[in-house]
Amino acid sequence: MDAIPSRPRAVVLLSGGMDSCVCAALAARAYQPAFLHVDYGQRTEARERSAFEAIARHYGVEQALTVRNDALAQIGGSALTDLRLAMPVEGLQPGIPITYVPFRNAHFLAAAVSWAEVLGAAAVLIGAVEPDSSGYPDCRPEYYRIFNQLIAAGTAAGGIRVETPLIAMRKAEIVRLGIDLGAPFHLSWSCYQNSTAACGECDSCRLRLAAFAAAGATDPIPYQTSTLVRSQEA
Amino acid sequence: MDAIPSRPRAVVLLSGGMDSCVCAALAARAYQPAFLHVDYGQRTEARERSAFEAIARHYGVEQALTVRNDALAQIGGSALTDLRLAMPVEGLQPGIPITYVPFRNAHFLAAAVSWAEVLGAAAVLIGAVEPDSSGYPDCRPEYYRIFNQLIAAGTAAGGIRVETPLIAMRKAEIVRLGIDLGAPFHLSWSCYQNSTAACGECDSCRLRLAAFAAAGATDPIPYQTSTLVRSQEA
Repeated sequence: MDAIPSRPRAVVLLSGGMDSCVCAALAARAYQPAFLHVDYGQRTEARERSAFEAIARHYGVEQALTVRNDALAQIGGSALTDLRLAMPVEGLQPGIPITYVPFRNAHFLAAAVSWAEVLGAAAVLIGAVEPDSSGYPDCRPEYYRIFNQLIAAGTAAGGIRVETPLIAMRKAEIVRLGIDLGAPFHLSWSCYQNSTAACGECDSCRLRLAAFAAAGATDPIPYQTSTLVRSQEA
Repeated sequence: MDAIPSRPRAVVLLSGGMDSCVCAALAARAYQPAFLHVDYGQRTEARERSAFEAIARHYGVEQALTVRNDALAQIGGSALTDLRLAMPVEGLQPGIPITYVPFRNAHFLAAAVSWAEVLGAAAVLIGAVEPDSSGYPDCRPEYYRIFNQLIAAGTAAGGIRVETPLIAMRKAEIVRLGIDLGAPFHLSWSCYQNSTAACGECDSCRLRLAAFAAAGATDPIPYQTSTLVRSQEA
């Protein structure tokens, strides 16, 4: 009876950062999206959540859910969740950084797949990126290939697929794609450290600033004045 | 310098139920165990947690951690987490029951693997059981085989293995093994419904009572009087 075939539903994991903002823009074109944010006690959760909520309002999604998972902060081991560990501000170093949260994306995907199963969604989208990124082991294509086997074996529904549309893209390509799609970068937040103006010094800020610079674009979010002065000097 | 080689560390997922109690008994022989309990807002969490804590005290483990994950209850879809859904008491039916919590064991294993990575543990033990059980899809050997691939691909440490020592055992065999190992069944709790005396009617109680009966043993935990009368009549 409905002349317009309804698009399949998808759960989109949305931290509120740059990559997930572009992932949301892609999902809004192909799916009927349900946005999922995980509050895991990370330092900048309040700021991330307001970014998530602003992006959800921007796209007018019917379903936007923030779930709380204290396990990662209780377990510790990362500068993102343990305030006693110093946040690196000297630029990306070789190896896996102290901001690595052990097996974090498994927690995020578990929540997304559980919700997808309840909603009858066909897909879960996550903005994981391998090149130009922090070197986290759970951001590699192989990890997601195996996760899809896990879903097939371990759910009642069976047919849910995790999609990683950005995984092979360089950060500058992601910025350009986001601009083409009209992704609301001004509502997104990536900084690991602060909540009012981005620090410009943590790994996440450095990757974001370099991406906008390489794309020949200006990042619309506020940075601390000291960062701007330094980046103009550089 | 140490004459006694120290045993490897393992994280043991411990709901406080019969199967995980036997799993803990096995782990106490082979490993230096760290016990992990997940509070996911299930109906009988307060009772489960006191069983977990009693079993941890029984084994004198140095590390026992309860983590809180609200995602499953926020997502809903199961009679274990949604009080509006009626708990089945008519006995096991064909198919996946309403007590199935979508993709639940992925949440548990994610927490266990994160903790194992922080502790430097070699293994994660979970008391999943396939035969005689409720038919949950995340209790099958294939699921754990794939999960081990996921850990290899998605952790910094890499070498952690999930072990499922009970997965192929019948429930009566698990009871006999627990008796042989001196597992503290009197401290365990399996009922999905009540917190003072086990109901004897939910799927979990039925499986447990049948297991003790088939093993020719008496379950040491209290049941509601009506259940005892019925089971004597049967």
